[in-house]
Amino acid sequence: MLAPHADALIEHVRANRDRYLGELKTWVAIPSISAQPDHRADVRRSAEHAVERMRAAGLTEALVLETDGNPVAYGAWLGAPGAPTILIYGHHDVQPDDPKELWTSPPWDAQVRDGKIYGRGVVDDKGQCLMHVAALEAHLRVNGKLPINVKVVFEGEEEIGSPSFEAFLAREKERLACDVVVVSDTAVFAEDVPSLTTSLRGLVRWEITVHGPTSDLHSGYYGGVVKNPLEALAQILASLKDAHGRVVVPGFYDGVRELSPRERAEIAALPFDPAKEAHALGVPELAGENARLPLERMWFRPTLEINGMYGGYQGQGTKTIIPSFAKAKLTSRLVPHQDPDAVKRAVATYVQRVAPKGVRVDVEVFEGDAPAVETSRDHPAVAAAARAMELGFGKPPVFIGTGGTIGPVSSFDRVLHLPQVLIGVGLPDDAIHAPNEKFDLHQFFGGIETMTYLYDELASALK
Amino acid sequence: MLAPHADALIEHVRANRDRYLGELKTWVAIPSISAQPDHRADVRRSAEHAVERMRAAGLTEALVLETDGNPVAYGAWLGAPGAPTILIYGHHDVQPDDPKELWTSPPWDAQVRDGKIYGRGVVDDKGQCLMHVAALEAHLRVNGKLPINVKVVFEGEEEIGSPSFEAFLAREKERLACDVVVVSDTAVFAEDVPSLTTSLRGLVRWEITVHGPTSDLHSGYYGGVVKNPLEALAQILASLKDAHGRVVVPGFYDGVRELSPRERAEIAALPFDPAKEAHALGVPELAGENARLPLERMWFRPTLEINGMYGGYQGQGTKTIIPSFAKAKLTSRLVPHQDPDAVKRAVATYVQRVAPKGVRVDVEVFEGDAPAVETSRDHPAVAAAARAMELGFGKPPVFIGTGGTIGPVSSFDRVLHLPQVLIGVGLPDDAIHAPNEKFDLHQFFGGIETMTYLYDELASALK
Repeated sequence: MLAPHADALIEHVRANRDRYLGELKTWVAIPSISAQPDHRADVRRSAEHAVERMRAAGLTEALVLETDGNPVAYGAWLGAPGAPTILIYGHHDVQPDDPKELWTSPPWDAQVRDGKIYGRGVVDDKGQCLMHVAALEAHLRVNGKLPINVKVVFEGEEEIGSPSFEAFLAREKERLACDVVVVSDTAVFAEDVPSLTTSLRGLVRWEITVHGPTSDLHSGYYGGVVKNPLEALAQILASLKDAHGRVVVPGFYDGVRELSPRERAEIAALPFDPAKEAHALGVPELAGENARLPLERMWFRPTLEINGMYGGYQGQGTKTIIPSFAKAKLTSRLVPHQDPDAVKRAVATYVQRVAPKGVRVDVEVFEGDAPAVETSRDHPAVAAAARAMELGFGKPPVFIGTGGTIGPVSSFDRVLHLPQVLIGVGLPDDAIHAPNEKFDLHQFFGGIETMTYLYDELASALK
Repeated sequence: MLAPHADALIEHVRANRDRYLGELKTWVAIPSISAQPDHRADVRRSAEHAVERMRAAGLTEALVLETDGNPVAYGAWLGAPGAPTILIYGHHDVQPDDPKELWTSPPWDAQVRDGKIYGRGVVDDKGQCLMHVAALEAHLRVNGKLPINVKVVFEGEEEIGSPSFEAFLAREKERLACDVVVVSDTAVFAEDVPSLTTSLRGLVRWEITVHGPTSDLHSGYYGGVVKNPLEALAQILASLKDAHGRVVVPGFYDGVRELSPRERAEIAALPFDPAKEAHALGVPELAGENARLPLERMWFRPTLEINGMYGGYQGQGTKTIIPSFAKAKLTSRLVPHQDPDAVKRAVATYVQRVAPKGVRVDVEVFEGDAPAVETSRDHPAVAAAARAMELGFGKPPVFIGTGGTIGPVSSFDRVLHLPQVLIGVGLPDDAIHAPNEKFDLHQFFGGIETMTYLYDELASALK
C-alpha cells in the first residue's frame, strides 16, 4: 500500500521534528487574534509569515491574498500536469488569550511539557496548518515534486466566523479551482481513535423580544392585570419541546434523515460513557431527546437552544417591577437535508402562534446561516484520507460527526460545490478557545506523517 | 355633624393656603433622598426641619429620634387627659430625581402650575405630612388645644423599604403607645372619588438559580446532550400558572377569602375601563386571572410575578453557548389571611418538584416579608375618617384596596397590633417615583381640611 518512496519521506519528517516544533513556536509568537482590532497588524504579519514559510517549503506560488477583512496566506505547487488538484484549508488567526492569568506558560511563548506543546493556536489551527507545510516540504525536498497539484489557503478570520470568506471564495473561484478540499481544523474522537469527520451541523439564529408595558410597572399596583413579559417568554420557550426533549415546532424535523443501522451501530461502538461525560461537565446527568443515543443527538439531530435570555431586574435583592420587555437569543444546529430558511420560518411562525395574549412578540431572524455539511463516505477522497490516516496512526479511522459548525466548510460546499475531506488530528481535551491550549506531539507528528501519505493516496484515488 | 368651632378652623386653614405652599416649597428644597448615601446629611436636615416645623405649629414635644438608619422626626401634643391618642405616620425621605432631564421644572424648586405643585416629594410624602402639621397648627392656634392626644412620626427610610423601622417601633413601643394609627401615604381612587384604603397586599420574595454545566459550553459540541439551564428555568416558570392565569402551586391560595357580594358590587361600581387602562400602559389588553374583575385581581388576589430573569449571552448578535446557569427573581403580593411562610415554602417545594432532570435548582427564600394588612371597615376610627373625608371633599369616600405594600403599615400591624386608618389624598397620576411628581392643590387643600375635621371625628368616635 505504501508508495515506493514513502520510507524516505517518513525518515525525512521524523528527522525534522525538532525543526517543526521550532517553526510552530515562531508562528505562535505572532498573536494573530482576529477578534481584537488592535491585533490587526499581527494577523497580517501572521499571513506574511505563513507565505514565507510556504515559499521556503518549495511551493512555487506564495503570496498574501486580500479579502474584505484579514488577509489569506496562499500557496500553490501546480507542477503535476494531468494530476488532480487539491485545496488545503486551515486558518492562521487565533482566539484571544483571556483569561491570561490561567495560563501555566505564556500563550505566545509555546513550550513543550510532557509530550505536549502549549500555546495559543498550537492546534487551532497553526499546528495543523504546519502539518501540511511540513509534509509538502518533505515531498519537494526528497522527491523534488508532489504527486498532485496543491493549493493552500490559510484564512485569517475563522475565529470570528469567517465574515469575508464566502465573498473571497466567489471572487477567487478560478484561482482556487480544484477537485477536492482538504480541511484540517477538527479533532479525532479520542486519543488512539483516529477519526475522519464526515458531517457538521449548520447554524441558524433568532432573537425573540416580548414587549409588555411601555415602561417597567410597579408590580404591586399592576400585578394581576398586566401580562408579565418574562412570564410570556418563559411560556413561549417552554412550549418549544415536549417532555421527551423533542422539538414540537411543526416542520422542524422536515428532511432530517434517520441513521442507517450501520451508522447507528458504529456510533454505539464508540467509547462514550454518559455518566463520565456528565461528571466531567458538572451536570447530574445528560439530557436531550431521550429516545436516541447521545452521540446521535450531538452529531445527527438538530437542536433548538436558548443561548441567552434576559429582562427585568438583575441586581442584588429584589426590585418589584413588571418589566417592559424580555428577550431571548436562540440558535438551531441543523443537520443535513434541513432547509435553513424553512426552519427559520417555522420557528418564527410557531413562536407567534403560541405567544400569550397581553403582549406583543417580535422574532428577529438573523441572516448568515451556515447549512449543515455531509461528506459522502463513499467518495474516493474520503477513502484515500482513511488509508493515509491508518498509515499515519497505525489504525483505521472511525467516521464521526461533529455537532459544531465550520463556516468555511459550509462556504466551500455552497460556493464551490466541492467534495471535502475533514482530516484533523486534535484531541477533544486540547482546550482550544481556552487557557492552556495544547497539541499532543504524538498527534502533531502522526498528523505530519498522515499528510505525507495523504497526497499520494489522493493522487491515486482521484486519478 | 360639624363641631361648633369648625367654621373658624376652616376659615383659618383657607386663609393660610399660600403659607402652606411656601412651607412645602421650603421642605421640598431639602433633597432627602434615602436611596443615595451622599444625601444622608440631607435626610437628617429634612428630619430637623420637620421637627422645627412641628415645634412652630405648637406641638409641645418635637425632636429627632434616632434609628439604626435615618432619623425619624417626632412630635407630640398630649394635653388632652382622658382623650384617646392617635399616632400620625408619614415619611420625610423621597425618591431620587432621575432621570433629571425629564423634569419640566427643577425637582428641588417646587413650582405651582395649573393648580398643581410640581417637585420631588410634594405628594410622596412631604405634602401629605404637612397636611397634618397645618391641621394640628390650626387647632392649636384657633382653640389653643387639640380634641385628642397626638403623636407624629415622620420616617426617613420609607423609600428604601423601611429597613430600620420595625426595630425602631419595638424599641420606642412605650413612647409611641396610642389607640389608632393614621397613615397618610396613599392615593384616592380617582379625582372626585374620595377613598379610604382598607387593604394592602403583602410581599414575599424568592430567587431561583438553575445550575447546569460547570462552565458555559459550546452549543455545537454539546447541544443535544446537556440540559440547557435557560430552558429548564423557562419550563419551571411556565409551570407556575395554568392557562387561566391561576397559580397552580398547591396551597398557594390557602386562606385567601372570596369577596363578599357587597365588596364585589362596590368594586364593579368603581369607574375602571380595562381598554383605556391597557392603552395607557401600552399593552394590547389586560391579562391575569380571567375569571375575576381587574380591580379584584389588583387588590384582593395574590400574585406570583417574575421581576427579573437572566442567563447566558446578552450582547449584540449571538454567542453559541449553553450557559452554565440561569436565574430568576420572583415575588408574590399576598392578600390577607395568607401565611407568608407557608407561601414561601409552597413555591420553593413546587419549583424543586417540577425542576427537569439534568440540572440542579436552588431556591433562595428571602427574609423580611411584609404580610398583607386589612383594616376593619367597621372600626369606629375608619367611620370617623370617612366622615372627615366627606366634610373635606364634599362626598362620602369609597373603600378601596391597593395592590402595593407599605412596609410601615405591616410593621404597625405586626409590632404594635394597632388599628390603622389609611387616609391619603394623592391622585393616581401624581407620578410619584417618576419625573414631574405633582400634588393637585385641590387635593392638598382638601386634605388639610379633612385632617382638620379628622381629629374631632376621631375624638368623638374613640371616646
